[in-house]
Amino acid sequence: MTAPTQVRVFAPATLSNLGPGFDVLGLALERPGDYVEAEWSDRPGIELVEVTGDDGRLPREPDRNVVGIAASAALGATPRDGEAPGVRLRLHKGMPLGSGLGSSAASSVAGALAVSELRGGALDTATLIACALEGERFVSGGVHADNVAPSIRGGIVLIRSYDPFEVLSLPVPSELRVAVVHPHTSVMTAEARRLVAEKRFEIGQAVANLGQIAAMVTALHREDLGLFGRAISDALVEPIRAPLIPGFAEVKQTALEEDALGCSISGSGPSVFAFAKSDDHAERLAGRMSERFQEVAGLACDTHTGPINTAGARKVSG
Amino acid sequence: MTAPTQVRVFAPATLSNLGPGFDVLGLALERPGDYVEAEWSDRPGIELVEVTGDDGRLPREPDRNVVGIAASAALGATPRDGEAPGVRLRLHKGMPLGSGLGSSAASSVAGALAVSELRGGALDTATLIACALEGERFVSGGVHADNVAPSIRGGIVLIRSYDPFEVLSLPVPSELRVAVVHPHTSVMTAEARRLVAEKRFEIGQAVANLGQIAAMVTALHREDLGLFGRAISDALVEPIRAPLIPGFAEVKQTALEEDALGCSISGSGPSVFAFAKSDDHAERLAGRMSERFQEVAGLACDTHTGPINTAGARKVSG
Repeated sequence: MTAPTQVRVFAPATLSNLGPGFDVLGLALERPGDYVEAEWSDRPGIELVEVTGDDGRLPREPDRNVVGIAASAALGATPRDGEAPGVRLRLHKGMPLGSGLGSSAASSVAGALAVSELRGGALDTATLIACALEGERFVSGGVHADNVAPSIRGGIVLIRSYDPFEVLSLPVPSELRVAVVHPHTSVMTAEARRLVAEKRFEIGQAVANLGQIAAMVTALHREDLGLFGRAISDALVEPIRAPLIPGFAEVKQTALEEDALGCSISGSGPSVFAFAKSDDHAERLAGRMSERFQEVAGLACDTHTGPINTAGARKVSG
Repeated sequence: MTAPTQVRVFAPATLSNLGPGFDVLGLALERPGDYVEAEWSDRPGIELVEVTGDDGRLPREPDRNVVGIAASAALGATPRDGEAPGVRLRLHKGMPLGSGLGSSAASSVAGALAVSELRGGALDTATLIACALEGERFVSGGVHADNVAPSIRGGIVLIRSYDPFEVLSLPVPSELRVAVVHPHTSVMTAEARRLVAEKRFEIGQAVANLGQIAAMVTALHREDLGLFGRAISDALVEPIRAPLIPGFAEVKQTALEEDALGCSISGSGPSVFAFAKSDDHAERLAGRMSERFQEVAGLACDTHTGPINTAGARKVSG
C-alpha cells in the first residue's frame, strides 16, 4: 500500500430536506465546506490537535466532536495491517455552525474521508457514509443522511430507504444553479426536529409531497427546469418551520417574484435556498433575498451561489 | 368537420394508489375495460339506452350513472356548432364493479371519449380528464385522478398536483409486466377512504413513502426493474387497508417468494397487483396468488396479466 503519511481533504456544505423531500433529498454545494488534515501518529486512537473557524464553539475532545467520532469509525471500519496506531487531525471549519447547511455532516464526512485517504482510500462510499453517520448520530440523536450522503457523493442524492440503507444519485441538469442565503439568526435544530416529530399529518399533506417529489425526480431526468421549480413545494414540514425564520415568507415571495425555480428552507434552517437558471439569475436571487431579510427582519446574510457540486468530498493534497 | 354519426370506444381498467403513490400514481391495463357506443340523437341531452355486464347494479338514469355524467360534461365542454342536440349511449361493462381496478373511471373515460370522438375528436386530453373526473366526483365525493388519468393517457401516470391540476406520463420499461388478482370479496370504497382520511400519520411514515416514490420514478427512467420492485412499498395506506382484504398478507408473501417486483393493493382493493419481469413470470404470479387467496381465505379470483397499456382509451370504430 502506497498510502500517504498526511492528507488534506475537503467536504462540501449541503442543502437537505430539499423541497418536498424531507429527510430523503439533499445536494452538495461547491462551497462553503470544511477542511480536515490528517497524519499518522504513534499515539493510539484519534487526536484532535486543532480546530479553527468555529469561534471556539466546538468540543476539542475527539470523542465529542463529530470529526473525531467519524474518523474513529473510519479507523475501525476495516482490518488494519502495519499501520501506525493513531491519527492526528486538524479541523478547519469553512462554514457557519447551525446554518442548516450541514455543518456537522461536512465535518463528519471530512473526518471519515481523511482517515480513508490516509489508508490509501481504504473505504468505499457506503462505508464512508456509515462512518460519517456516526458523527451525525452523536449530534442529532437520530439518523438522517440527506446531508452526509450528498456531501460524500456530490450531486443530488436520494435516500430511498433507511432500513435497508440505500442511496441513489439523481441526474443534475447542467444549467441548474442554486442561490443560498444564510440569515444571521439561529434555529435550534433539536427544537425544529421536535416540532416535526410531534406533529401528526393528514393524508392530503403526504399526497401533496408525494406528487411533488415524484415530479421533481422526473424533472431531473428530463432536464426540465420549469417542472423542477414547480415541484419545489413542501406541504409537510415547511409550514411548521417557516415561523422559526423571521422574514421567511417575504423572502420566499421575493424569490418567486424574481422567477426562482422554487424556494424553501435548507435543513432546519435558517438558510433559505432558491434554484436558478443561470449564474446571473442565481446572483440576482441571492442579492434580492438577502436585501429582503435585512428589510423585513433586520437580518444580515451570507450568500452562496453556483452550480451543484457533482464531485463531492475529495482529497485536496497528500 | 367529418365527424362520424356513431362511434365505439374502449377505456381500460387501471391500477391506482400504486405502491407508495397514494392518490398520485396509476397505470393502465391492457384489459379488462369498458366499451361505450355513442350516436347522435334528435332528443336533447344524454340518453343511456343500454347498460350490460353490470348484473343490473348500475343506475340507468344518465344523470346518476358516471358514463352519462362524463358524457354530458364532454358535450358541454366546448362550443357546439351544427351538431345534433343529443347523444344516445350504450355502456358495456367489461370489468367488475368495486374491484379496485377503476371501474367507475373506465366508464367515465369511455363516456367522455365517446362524445369527443362523435364530435370529431373535439376534446384534448386535459379536457377529457376534467370531464371524466366529473363522473368520479359523483361516485366518490372527492377528486382523485389516478384512475382517470392513466385510463385516458395510457402508461404510468403521475398526478403532480391537484391544484393546479398537472399530470405527467412516466417512462414504461418495455419488459415490465403486471399480474392482477381480483378476489371475489367486496371492500366498501367509502369506508376504505374514510379510514385513511381519519388517520393521522407520523412524519416517518411520510418519509418512507417519499423515498420510495422518488426511487420508483428513478427506476422507471433507468429501466431498473430491481429498483422498481424494491420501491413498491407503502408505509402510509397499505397498513390501514390490508386488514380489509382477507388473506392479503399471505398472498403478498407468496408473491414476494415468487420473486414479484413488489406487491400491493390496487385502489381501495380488494384487487392485489404484483409486477413481473416476463409474461411467464406474470402468469406464474397470478396463478400462485389466486391459489393462495383460495387456500387461506376461501376466495375465488379473476386474474389479468400482461404488459402496461401504453395506448390508453381509444376509438375502436366509427
